[in-house]
Formats: sequence, C-alpha cells, structure tokens
Amino acid sequence: MLVVLMAGGSGTRFWPLSTPARPKQLLNLTGDGSLLQLTYQRIKDLVPSENIYVFTGEGIQSAVGREIPELSENQIVAEPAARNTAPCIAAAALWLRRKHPDETMVVLPADHLITDIAKFHRCLKEADALARVSKGLVTLGIKPTRAETGFGYIEADPERTAGRGFAVKGFHEKPDSATAKRYLARKHFFWNSGIFVWKVSSILESLYMHLPELMKILKPLESADKPEIWWKTFKELFPKTPSVSVDYGVLEKAANVYVVPATFDWNDIGSWPALESIRSRDAHGNIVQGSVRQIETKDCMIINESSVPLATIGVKDLIIVSTKDGVLVCHKDKAQEIRQIKF
Amino acid sequence: MLVVLMAGGSGTRFWPLSTPARPKQLLNLTGDGSLLQLTYQRIKDLVPSENIYVFTGEGIQSAVGREIPELSENQIVAEPAARNTAPCIAAAALWLRRKHPDETMVVLPADHLITDIAKFHRCLKEADALARVSKGLVTLGIKPTRAETGFGYIEADPERTAGRGFAVKGFHEKPDSATAKRYLARKHFFWNSGIFVWKVSSILESLYMHLPELMKILKPLESADKPEIWWKTFKELFPKTPSVSVDYGVLEKAANVYVVPATFDWNDIGSWPALESIRSRDAHGNIVQGSVRQIETKDCMIINESSVPLATIGVKDLIIVSTKDGVLVCHKDKAQEIRQIKF
Repeated sequence: MLVVLMAGGSGTRFWPLSTPARPKQLLNLTGDGSLLQLTYQRIKDLVPSENIYVFTGEGIQSAVGREIPELSENQIVAEPAARNTAPCIAAAALWLRRKHPDETMVVLPADHLITDIAKFHRCLKEADALARVSKGLVTLGIKPTRAETGFGYIEADPERTAGRGFAVKGFHEKPDSATAKRYLARKHFFWNSGIFVWKVSSILESLYMHLPELMKILKPLESADKPEIWWKTFKELFPKTPSVSVDYGVLEKAANVYVVPATFDWNDIGSWPALESIRSRDAHGNIVQGSVRQIETKDCMIINESSVPLATIGVKDLIIVSTKDGVLVCHKDKAQEIRQIKF
Repeated sequence: MLVVLMAGGSGTRFWPLSTPARPKQLLNLTGDGSLLQLTYQRIKDLVPSENIYVFTGEGIQSAVGREIPELSENQIVAEPAARNTAPCIAAAALWLRRKHPDETMVVLPADHLITDIAKFHRCLKEADALARVSKGLVTLGIKPTRAETGFGYIEADPERTAGRGFAVKGFHEKPDSATAKRYLARKHFFWNSGIFVWKVSSILESLYMHLPELMKILKPLESADKPEIWWKTFKELFPKTPSVSVDYGVLEKAANVYVVPATFDWNDIGSWPALESIRSRDAHGNIVQGSVRQIETKDCMIINESSVPLATIGVKDLIIVSTKDGVLVCHKDKAQEIRQIKF
C-alpha cells in the first residue's frame, strides 16, 4: 500500500490562525499536533514510511518537512502551482508506477481529524482489498450526521454490494439546505471524505480515459528517466495542467466506483465552529486558549495566540481570534463568511 | 492668572488604547491632538506659558514634555506617587505662593474636551473675578444633560447669587440611577467639572483649615529655599501625603465655595462610548479607525492601532480595540466594566 497525503489548501477559513504561510493542515487545532502530523501518525503503522508521499504547496514545503522529519526530501513534493486534486493524483500515480505498478495507493487529505485509528486501519484494509479485487476506484463514505451543505455526497447502490461496500450510483455536488435534509434522511447517502483507495494502474487507466488532455500534458513523465529528470519535468509540466478535482474529472464519470462506509469518527474541521466539537468548554460555555480575561462572556470561542492580552466583556456567541497575523471578531452564525476576508 | 494642569490619571477605561505608559490625556481621541495638547492650547492664549504648570505621573513626564514643548522642564512636575488631587494642589499652591501670593490659580483636568474656547475663556474670567472678589473657592459647574451616575454633583443655592454664579449649598457624591434622575430634573444641580479657580492664598487657607495633617507633612516646603531644594523636598515629602481629593478634603467642608455655570460645551470622554459623540459614523453606524475589514457589522466602534489587520463579521453594538498592548472586545452597554481588567 502506498500513500499520498494531500496537503495543499490555503486555509482561508481559519484566518487569522491560518494564513498562506500556515494553512489549516499545519495548525495544532486539537492540542495533539498539527493536522498533518496527526494524519501521518494515523497511517505510519500501516505503511512503511518510504511509501508515504506528501504533496503540498511550494511556500510550505519546508514547514511540512519540519512537521514530518521521518520523510526524506523527495517524499515531500511541492506543487509549483495550485491545481486541485486530479493533476496531483495523476502525477503521483505516474511516479509510483515506476516502481510499484501493481500496488494500491491511498489518497488522504491531510487536514481532517480521525481519532479511532484501529477502525480507520480496518476500513482502509477493506477498501484496499476491494480496490485490488475489483480494480475499481474505492471511496470512503462518511455517514452524515447533519444536513451539511458544505460537502459533496456519494449515493451508494444498495442493490450492488461489494465486500463491505457498495457500487456508487452517483455523486451529488454540495446541496442546498433542503436537498441536504433529504440526503440526510436517505439511507445510502454518504459524505465524500476525499479518502480514496485504488490500484495505481486503475486510477491511471481512468485518468487516461476521462482526462486525456491532462494526461497528454503529463506524457513526458512516462518516459522521464532518472528521478532528478522526472521531478524536474514534473515541475515544468505541472503549472500547465488544468485545475480539476479528481471527483469531478474522474469519479463522477467512471463506471467502476465503490464506496466503503467509514466506521471511524471523522471531522473535517471545516471552519471555526467545527472546533467546538473537539475542544472542551469552561463553566460559561467558552472555549478559551491563551491569555484571555473574560468578564460576562458566554458561549464564545476565544483564541489568543498574539503576544498581548485579550479581554472580552459582555459578549456572547462570538469567535474571537488574535494572532500575530490579525484579529477576527465573528458571530458564530457567520463563520462561513470568513473566506470573504481579503487583506 | 496661574494654571495647574492635572495630568495624572492612569487611563484604565480606554484600555488597550490607554495604558499606564499612555494614559487618556496622551491619547489623540479627536484626531486633533492629545487631550493634554488640546487642554494646553485652550489656555495658552489666556495665560503666559511661564505661568502654566503640569502635574503628572513619573512614568509619563517625558511624554508630557514632548506633547507641550513650550513648557520648560521645571514646569512639568512628576508626582513621585499617585495621591489624588489635594496633595498636588497643596504643593502647587505652596510653590506658586513664593512668587505670586496674591494671584489666582486655575486647576484644569487635562483629559476633558471643550471646543468652544471663547465661551471657556469668558467663564474662566468670570470665575477669576469671583475668586478675587469673594476670596472663595470657585468651581465650574456643567449643566447635566443626562442622569449620569459617574460624576459628583454640585448643588447651587439659587438664593445666593454671586456674579454670574451661586454660592454652593452642597456637594453630592456619585449618585445611584434614581437619584441622578432627580438631580437632572432639579434646576440648580451641576456636574462637578473638576475645574477650579481660587486665589493661591484662599486655597492654602482652606487647606490649612480642613487638611491640617496634609499641610503638616508639606510644612518643610514653606521654608525650602532655592528651587532645587524646594523640588527635592517635594519629591521626598509627596509620597508621605495621604491620598485625598480636593473635593472631599476641602470643597465639601469649606463654607466659601461658589459655582459658576459653564456656558461652553464639555465632554469628559470618560469611556469608550463617549467617543460616539465626537466621532462620525459610517453608513452602517460604525465608527472605524485603522485597517478594518467589516462584513455585516453594525453600530460598532472599531479601532485598530495594531500592525495587523482586523476583521469583524456579523457583529453589532461592540467596542473592538486592537493595539500593540492588547485586544478588547466589549459590548457597548458594558464599557464601565473595562476598569476591572487587570493583566
């Protein structure tokens, strides 16, 4: 089993804690290490470290290296431009094919939180087995717990079981609120976790079929010789690829897609309010970190990472974050608007 | 006419804009200069600069000197300890008596805002004339415009007029809300502005009568010879004086106290909400200063003096202040609680 950790992402939703130089995957949101470190630790007992690759942005390559010192320099790949998931997965698959054409590769977002490692491993092994037997593209689906409008949904076909999973009937893009409620009520709808398992040969076959223009651009990688040449070519070609997700570009079009329902806990920590589920509150319902003086403050999330004190008086239901990069004061109901902030 | 600017005050109510190193009187709250500068400019055409003294805290003596470069070093007196107004006024009067025993002295708080300078001068001249004729202690009273609980009140005796003023019937300490409402409805109640005019000899006489212990401590100043000796003795004795206000220690006990109703505008800018009356609002009712990005923000006061950006989303009726010394997020209704903050 090979692993590709997807550690791109600009992390605008956790501003000012996250910035281009410190995106979400590098944040220590739980207190146990950065999301990237936790993702690595979650997989390292299942896969030898030499088989783990991290794809990330150029600006944070060295930060990623510091977070996972176990990986050698050439296992941390800086994408010279942000191009969504398909070009990254295509390049990763082409690289892995050189030595492991018959192996499976696991694609893992590096900014999600999963704490039940045993169940996580079991699911990955089930997905791995299914990927080998079916030669299909296996996704891990999360059982929805709320009518979430921020995720894509996977509709399983209950008639076509495959191991512990199902064949996929269809993908549904981020729904509106009413549609999300309907999905939540249906039995075979899952959140798309962004965790995929497939044989290197299977995903390449699908990429050649559904994204031929992308694969044409990357064609020189097929014949590139030495590793130095290969990565140099990668750097040159990658910015020329189209920005497209593997979901939209491949999975929604492919016929041989499966979903294995996740049995582990999963939290994408998509925005500040998501922290409420993983942090403990004080007697006034506040989640507090850093030097904070509260007076008559209720149900707030207050994070002070700056070097100066922060005081709150007579406020309620606010997200207040102060760092060396900025100060945010946001009503909890408006956390989705944080992405609008451009300085 | 001699002037004593009272520029003590720790300015806790404007934290984090005000700090011990930058109390309220040094803040440029109006955009036209610090309150201290404005106070000096308000008086400088009425009194020769060599007759103006500033009494301030040791920590900000040099800052005060930078604010009023017109004053020589020995006109800016650092109190070696905070001792409220009576010891300061007593020492100032003893110093001024050396050269001007028969003159009047004006005591002016350095952290109030008055914009109608012509009317202000006229009132001071009226108070000055009354102080000379009556040999009494003359206060300037502000006609209340709201049932303010944060000020002391002066009750005039309408039967006993004196020039444009009145003899004082009594002083009333900061009232509760119901009492403040009654005071507001009464005709001859005034806010105590802290502006006083009296002959040097008159205030000293009252101090000897009502605060004999204080004057006993300061006795060596009466015979101190050269200015260097005088100020050295002041530094030694001042910390030994009791902390007492001239209002409580003298004015409330003295018989010959007068009040001249102020005809000028007056704002003590006692807390953040007071800024609302002197700053203009944007279309959303916000008062904004510095690098601020607002989304769905209404009726807030947002001051960003830090070097990093500040963003507000979905908030209302808040005072948000970010400086190099701290961050405050406070509901407008709770601004009085800011004094509680201790870091």
